[in-house]
Formats: sequence, C-alpha cells, structure tokens
Amino acid sequence: MRFRAAFRVCESRNRAPLLLQPQASRSFSQLPLNSQRPSFGIAFDIDGVVLRGRVPIGGSPQALRRLYGDSGALKVPFLFLTNGGGVPETRRATELSELLGVHILPSQVVQGHSPFKTLLKRFENELIIATGKGEPAVVMSEYGFKKVLSLDEYASYFENIDPVSQYKMWTAKQESGNGSDPKKLVPKYNATSDRVKAAFVVSDPVDWGRDIQVLCDILRSGGLPGHKKTQQPPLYFAADDLEYQAAFPVERLGMGAFRIALESVFNRIHCNALEYVSFGKPNPFVFKNAEAVLRQLQSSCNDNAIDNGDVGSNLFKTIYMIGDNPLVDIKGAQQDILGFLF
Amino acid sequence: MRFRAAFRVCESRNRAPLLLQPQASRSFSQLPLNSQRPSFGIAFDIDGVVLRGRVPIGGSPQALRRLYGDSGALKVPFLFLTNGGGVPETRRATELSELLGVHILPSQVVQGHSPFKTLLKRFENELIIATGKGEPAVVMSEYGFKKVLSLDEYASYFENIDPVSQYKMWTAKQESGNGSDPKKLVPKYNATSDRVKAAFVVSDPVDWGRDIQVLCDILRSGGLPGHKKTQQPPLYFAADDLEYQAAFPVERLGMGAFRIALESVFNRIHCNALEYVSFGKPNPFVFKNAEAVLRQLQSSCNDNAIDNGDVGSNLFKTIYMIGDNPLVDIKGAQQDILGFLF
Repeated sequence: MRFRAAFRVCESRNRAPLLLQPQASRSFSQLPLNSQRPSFGIAFDIDGVVLRGRVPIGGSPQALRRLYGDSGALKVPFLFLTNGGGVPETRRATELSELLGVHILPSQVVQGHSPFKTLLKRFENELIIATGKGEPAVVMSEYGFKKVLSLDEYASYFENIDPVSQYKMWTAKQESGNGSDPKKLVPKYNATSDRVKAAFVVSDPVDWGRDIQVLCDILRSGGLPGHKKTQQPPLYFAADDLEYQAAFPVERLGMGAFRIALESVFNRIHCNALEYVSFGKPNPFVFKNAEAVLRQLQSSCNDNAIDNGDVGSNLFKTIYMIGDNPLVDIKGAQQDILGFLF
Repeated sequence: MRFRAAFRVCESRNRAPLLLQPQASRSFSQLPLNSQRPSFGIAFDIDGVVLRGRVPIGGSPQALRRLYGDSGALKVPFLFLTNGGGVPETRRATELSELLGVHILPSQVVQGHSPFKTLLKRFENELIIATGKGEPAVVMSEYGFKKVLSLDEYASYFENIDPVSQYKMWTAKQESGNGSDPKKLVPKYNATSDRVKAAFVVSDPVDWGRDIQVLCDILRSGGLPGHKKTQQPPLYFAADDLEYQAAFPVERLGMGAFRIALESVFNRIHCNALEYVSFGKPNPFVFKNAEAVLRQLQSSCNDNAIDNGDVGSNLFKTIYMIGDNPLVDIKGAQQDILGFLF
C-alpha cells in the first residue's frame, strides 16, 4: 500500500507538524520486534518539522534515535523528503547527521532537485543552466550532467546583461559567477555561441531580478540571449512552494513565488506563455519515488529479521508522511493514494 | 498649446529617437533670432536618446550646444524628461553637464521620482520606505521627507526577514542596509515598532527577491512586518517601464516588470489586490509638469528679447518630445494633447 491519507491535522500559527496516521490505532511506540521486518516507513519533511533553520525542533533528535536499534542499525526505514536543496545529497546527509545526532545515509535524503537525475539521459551532454542558492551547478554535476553552468557564471559571460549588476557583489559563498575571475573571460562550453538546451531552478533563487532577466533572455531567444527566436528550451523547477516556514516568524516566499514572478513577466514580454515543469512535493512522482527508496531501506533493516524471501514485494502496511504544509505534504500523499486507487 | 502629436516615427531594432514634429515645416535649424522669444521648447529623454549608459549617442553634445547662445545663455528652453533616477536632481544635472559638455541646471532634470515632491505635505513627518538603485532615501530626504529609510536599512532591522541574505553582500555603492554597522542595531524612527505609512519605489530595484518579500511583509501587515493586518499603506512607483534600452543590445526589464512581479506574488498571498500609483512617462501629469518647467526656462531665455509683458502666458507654438519609446514618450505626449482638447 501507499501513503495513508487518513490523518489528524493539528495546525497552529506556525504550523505544527501534520501526522498522517492510519485509521487503525497504530502509534510510533509500536516499533517492530527484532524478529519482524518493519511494516511501516516514515518520510519526514525537514524545515519546520525536524529543523528550523539549523536548530532541531523539540525532541526531534531523540525521536529519530528511536528508529535505530541498540546496535545502531536502522530499525524503522525512514527518509527526509524536502522541497529544499542547493547542496548534493551526500553533503546534506552529513550536515543532517551532525545536527540531529544520528547517521543519515545519502539515500535517506530526497531533496526537491533529486528527480532531476531522471533527466540525465536527455541532457547529459547538452549545455544546461542551473540556478538557486548554494551550489546548483555542483548538484547537477554530481548527478552526471557534463555541460552545466551556474546562472551566475553564465551571466558573467554576457556584458551588461544585468543592468544593475554594479550595485551588487556576491560573497564567496555564492558559486562562481563574477567577472573578476580571469578564467571567466573564456566561456566554458561555448556558452556565448551555443544555445542553452534546458534551464533548471535547483533551489530558491538568490538574485531574483538577475535570474528573471537572464532566464527571460535565454527562454525567449531559444537558448542564446539576443539571438533569433526559436522554441523555448525546457524549464524545470525543483519545487513550487509559494511560501515556507524558515527562521523568520512569518513564512517566507519560496520557489513557487519566484516561478509566479518569472511567469508573469515572461508572459508580458513574449508572445507564447511560459512552459515549465515543477517537481517537488506535492508532485505524486516524489511520493512514489520516496516509497521506492523506503523499500530499499526496509530490505536493509534488521538483518536478523525473518525474510519472506521477496524483498521487492510490498511489505509496508503504512507509510507515514510527517510534514508541516498541507498544500505540499498532505496533498501530495493524498494524490499518491488516489493515483494508486484509480 | 501643448505637446504636438503629429510626428514621424523612425524605428529600428534598437529604436532610433522618435521626433515629435508639428505638421507645419518647422525644423531645429529655425532657431529664434535674438529679438525673439523662443516659440518652442524641447523635452529630451536621456537613456537611448542622448546617452547609452554613460556614453553620448551620435552628435548629442554638439546638438545640445546649438540650444545655447554665443554668450552661453540658454537660447531654446529644454529639459531632460526621464523615467530613470536614483540620485538627486542636483547631482544628475552635474553628471549630465560633464558627460554632454553643456551646463545643465537642476531644474532641467525631471526624473521619474521628481513628482514624489508633490506628496511631501502628506508624508513629510511619517515613516516611509524608499527602494531602488542608487540612493533612494537621499533622494527622498532632499525632497524634504523627514522620516525616510531605505528598504536596505529597514530590512536590516528585521532578523531573518530575507531567507537568502547569507548568500549576498552589497557593495559600498549600495546605500546603508547591512547589519554589520553597529549603528544599524538601533533602529531609526522606531522602525521596528511604528507602522510604515508609505512605500516608494524610487528607481529600478536591485534586489528584487528581498524587495518583493519585504514589501509584501509591509503591505499585507498594514506597515509592520508580522503584525496584525490593517489597510495596505500607499505604494508609489516612479515609473512603469516594462523594458528600456540600456548598454545591453536587447532591452532590459524595468520598473514596470518589477511592479508586475510584485503584484502577481502579492495578489497570490493576500486577499486584497495590490493598490499602487505609478508616476513617470506616459503619465500625463509628467508632461504637464514638463511644460510648466519649460515655461519658467523660457522666461529666462534671451534677456534682450522683446517681452510681451506676460511671461506666464502660453508663448509656445510647439513643445517637442524626443524619445525612443513609443509606449511612454509618444503615448504620453499624445495623452497630454487629448487631456488638453477634452
């Protein structure tokens, strides 16, 4: 079975986590015995559920430790299912391990941009652009894309493309992208003559104005700013959250808000409406993928457990999605059920 | 009479200046004799007409010098009518004088934000926010507003209000606004407890994402981020240009594009649609104001000219608007005529 949609919703101003729970009276205290394979898995949202910024929420570290056996082996298969991102899953797993005090595997981290891996075959050797906070080009490179440039670096090859660039300067934290580096004077991958084949919004954009301008230049020209118009290259968003809970008391604008801003401007200056695909919760694909990952984790749980000889079979009675956003966490789980029933 | 709307339009990819010319065969070679008051005035757009970036276009310096007599006195009343801005008119006049080789008076510089002066009586002693490239708060302070803060500085008083602030750092060119200055730790004008009474977009915003986030916070809370909602404070834009010609070969997104982005996001997260007022061309107010300024300049032209004793009377047969954007330069002049006829 898939994610269960019968749940209790406890919501406060700053959204308490929402627990999807089966109608039967199961609770987390009923953990599997050593002789049993776990019959349920858990998908945790991160921001606003186990962490607020970099600070653990409530007893989340202690709660997570209960999902491991005395030997330290995983007792209950769980993963983190977040629309956030901007760093490779390997690095995010290390960071979460340090913040939460348990050993998190890279395979237990499913970020908004993780589904971009599925587009590798189509764009592996094509010139693509990646934008967002953190290291979007590094993320895409680790997925195997061979000719990826951050939008920061790409923009640095086009003089005056950002008319207010002289009023801003990025910190070293920002990946590449300023013209002061002589290496930048020699564009990689013929970036100033070849057309961009796809643009990826990997994480929340930092410089909305510059990104909207350059994405409009790329998309309305068919991949090469200022050149003859051809078909719009594909545009992919890792998520579509309108707002999300961060460290500020009031929710902050997310990637969905950036998408709305880009789309509204693009549709005013271009004859054809913006075409795009958004991944991330509540996209049912994300929940189907999470279930597949949990099954793999389940097969590694409790080495001493009785194996029915068919690891690939559907052994879960329940998968719990624990999130703080009904619009993405709960809606997505429900859509997954519907997708299963019909 | 007002701006004439019968004109020839010569347009290229990068827009040649548009000349508004009366149907009668008048030309600039017919300058007034010393014994005559000039019967026409001229309003020049700046960007894309006399300058591209900081470089004079064609023979614009020589052409402007023909509008002065041998003594250096103004022979033909003219002014610069631009939707640009971000610096006080006094400083812009000095800059234009250096770039164009003629002595430009501050009164000959009418920028997009110049009409904000007319709101002084209403907001002189109220807490207001100013944003945009350059020195928006300095511009507003020079107009006489007593409690103005740049959005940069205002945002620095609210920790974590910009969730991606750690990925960016402003240069010294940017006015105030980063938390590293200890003085910023003591908010001016009780900015963290008093409500903002109005927000002004003085020039093209630099940090679209942060500005859209903070303006949404201010506007949907009734002037104090995170607090109880009340009526939206007034929001004023200096201009509404969707695109404009800058140094890049293809037009760049302007303040109108930022307004569209802000409006589309705000209207998705707030129950009431965004309310705002946009000044700048093609707003007929701007052209009426330009005519009044030209009349004052006219009265100072040719001290030896025969004065009909009524400087205030309508002495212009024609006012020429020379611009490169039909949507703001020409449309505005036409609207002004229509406003005069009906």
